Amino acid sequence: MWKDLDINLAAHNGLLSVLSDAYKNIYLSQKKRPEGMKYFDFVVSEVHGLRIEEIVEAKKEKRKVIGTFCVYVPEELVLSVDGVCIGLCAGAEVGSDEAEKYIPRNTCALIKAFMGFKVAGLCPYVQTADLIVGETTCDGKKKAYEIFNEVTKGKVFVMEIPNKKDEDGRKLWSNEVKRFAKKLEELTGKTITLEKLKEAAKTVNEKRKALQRLSMLRASDPSPISGLDALLVNQVSFYDDPRRFTAKVNELCDELEQRVKSGTGVAEKGIPRILISGSPMAIPNWKLHAIIEGSGATVVGEESCVGERNFRTSLDENFTSIEEGMEKIAARYLTINCACFTPNVERLTDIEDMSRQLKADGIVHYAIQFCTPYMMEAFKVKKTADKINVPFLRIETDYSMEDMGQLKTRVEAFLEVIGKGAHA
Amino acid sequence: MWKDLDINLAAHNGLLSVLSDAYKNIYLSQKKRPEGMKYFDFVVSEVHGLRIEEIVEAKKEKRKVIGTFCVYVPEELVLSVDGVCIGLCAGAEVGSDEAEKYIPRNTCALIKAFMGFKVAGLCPYVQTADLIVGETTCDGKKKAYEIFNEVTKGKVFVMEIPNKKDEDGRKLWSNEVKRFAKKLEELTGKTITLEKLKEAAKTVNEKRKALQRLSMLRASDPSPISGLDALLVNQVSFYDDPRRFTAKVNELCDELEQRVKSGTGVAEKGIPRILISGSPMAIPNWKLHAIIEGSGATVVGEESCVGERNFRTSLDENFTSIEEGMEKIAARYLTINCACFTPNVERLTDIEDMSRQLKADGIVHYAIQFCTPYMMEAFKVKKTADKINVPFLRIETDYSMEDMGQLKTRVEAFLEVIGKGAHA
Repeated sequence: MWKDLDINLAAHNGLLSVLSDAYKNIYLSQKKRPEGMKYFDFVVSEVHGLRIEEIVEAKKEKRKVIGTFCVYVPEELVLSVDGVCIGLCAGAEVGSDEAEKYIPRNTCALIKAFMGFKVAGLCPYVQTADLIVGETTCDGKKKAYEIFNEVTKGKVFVMEIPNKKDEDGRKLWSNEVKRFAKKLEELTGKTITLEKLKEAAKTVNEKRKALQRLSMLRASDPSPISGLDALLVNQVSFYDDPRRFTAKVNELCDELEQRVKSGTGVAEKGIPRILISGSPMAIPNWKLHAIIEGSGATVVGEESCVGERNFRTSLDENFTSIEEGMEKIAARYLTINCACFTPNVERLTDIEDMSRQLKADGIVHYAIQFCTPYMMEAFKVKKTADKINVPFLRIETDYSMEDMGQLKTRVEAFLEVIGKGAHA
Repeated sequence: MWKDLDINLAAHNGLLSVLSDAYKNIYLSQKKRPEGMKYFDFVVSEVHGLRIEEIVEAKKEKRKVIGTFCVYVPEELVLSVDGVCIGLCAGAEVGSDEAEKYIPRNTCALIKAFMGFKVAGLCPYVQTADLIVGETTCDGKKKAYEIFNEVTKGKVFVMEIPNKKDEDGRKLWSNEVKRFAKKLEELTGKTITLEKLKEAAKTVNEKRKALQRLSMLRASDPSPISGLDALLVNQVSFYDDPRRFTAKVNELCDELEQRVKSGTGVAEKGIPRILISGSPMAIPNWKLHAIIEGSGATVVGEESCVGERNFRTSLDENFTSIEEGMEKIAARYLTINCACFTPNVERLTDIEDMSRQLKADGIVHYAIQFCTPYMMEAFKVKKTADKINVPFLRIETDYSMEDMGQLKTRVEAFLEVIGKGAHA
């Protein structure tokens, strides 16, 4: 199978071995983990194994694989044509030297990673993809997709996200959603029917509801699940089969509800509760959570695309025509408050709401280095944190481990400021 | 006057003194300069003097001052309401420490400069501005304008530039042009009439034609004017009175035509001819031209917003209604091939055309550090240069002088590759 996918086998084995070690150190060493996490441990152990086999099987059944890098790509449409929707590899420092032949050194780690994974032949998902959907959410991605299109020999389809959510922006985006639907129909030779669209809408909404349920359970003190584990569930949501994933998240939530009832948490009650806000954390980017939870605090939420922004709002399923369904899909996706919009005050409201609901003691703003939209918006997030009187820490980092010591020192100092028994 | 404008006098005197020294060293030391440059020397010497007085006078006559940072802002509309259109200060390393309280350290020098000039109280233009027009051409500017709007107490008006030049993008942009016109009418209490619009169109087109004429004269070998001087003329085009400026550029061109006829150049015939392509160079950013021309080559063109992109296409003046005029204005501005668009292949064609017309021996791609759109697009520009067999050099730098030695070494090595008597 790996040969067919044109994977660099030796380097790939090395990557899996590093991943496995990191997972043992960061995840399996955690105490009082819910039983329900065993499924996700298994999924991670098979991230470049069984899941790829499933996708290869799906391709044999003539299903198409759609690779994505952004929560703005409407999964409902992919499912409506029986496609497999996969978030592509972008969370590890891989193939950087190779990537820098195509893109500048001063590029954010996520973009460098997706380029690196591809040019180094290390992402089996991108190899299986029939279509790769890009979007214009930031300068880096927007321009890198032009090069990625060359590297993948013309597989990239770019959806335009407007800069403003005004009437013209909404119209433009709505047309982009329809253009994407048409592209999917052409690619698969299938027609999107109302029945298919409604079924897909239900499937994706159920996934969202499960993730919303998980998010709300983290409001308890003590939290019944670690931030690391919750982050992992969110990361897995981008590449697992959606129905199976939803069932497993709900099973996990059943268990967590029992924990909440009995007052059982992963750590003691009363330790500092941290809300993380900012750039997405693609798997296996667990760096910041590991530092914070390793310093005696608990991460209770992620105002992030790998997190709340992905599931915060559900789609209105009450539509009676394909046209109406498309409009509702377009409208639903525009509720995602990405920093690509100007202005983006809705995100500040989300942060305020989440901070209150999750009883956050501190907000850590996370920006991948060179991620200009989130780095810039940190200025306004700090003002929001000041307004609601929640301590605020700004972190900019990449995927390397070089600054771990320095970040740990800064996080520990921040937890002391919060001053709430943070000493693990 | 300076007190009224709330300028930091001591720091401003320091800035002017540094500017004056730099101008002497870089500009006045040049040999065989055209007589016509004397006007521009004078303008620079009065950049924060007489020109500000003129603008203050205009304000007394109830004219409004519109500050801009981008060639996408339609000057025709500003002139139609008797406004003064001014490119704001963004070309020097000023107030960086102050600016970094608002925007990240990893921000391009141009953005850091406009923030720095404002927060350090050093740009009299921004102080006189009644409206500051932003645009969504890059993540950095798009998000910095949100903060700049706070810093300037609500003076910023942002025009949305779409990410693609497709039908929806064109419609969106056309509506933005009309929205800007309406904003100007509200601000000034004046109505844009067909007569006014046609007059403004003519004024701006004449400015463009003068700059086109200057550009074409640089195709001669030897070039009748240095790249430094031509760059300066382009920089001055953003803040001088447009009619006076046009007359002075045409006078200069008359002189240059005589030079071309007599075979007189600023340097010897046959030295390497360099086309610079990339990020804009706001006054007083003369760094790269100074290095290249100080190394025995001559800069013959700037595929840049401060340069060719600003004047390459004229507006079609054949319109008979305001509505039609607006549509033609919207269409004309969309011919500017900014790296904010995806894809942006038209820019590659422009580079190819300019390279041939100006008989370039080498292309130097210039990106301000952290200017992601141009840094990324350099990859494709290199491919274009390879295709037309013109040597290519990629430079990324900021406004500081720290890397002058290193850049000079790289430029000299590049000129040796060109191998055309480059040894000054």
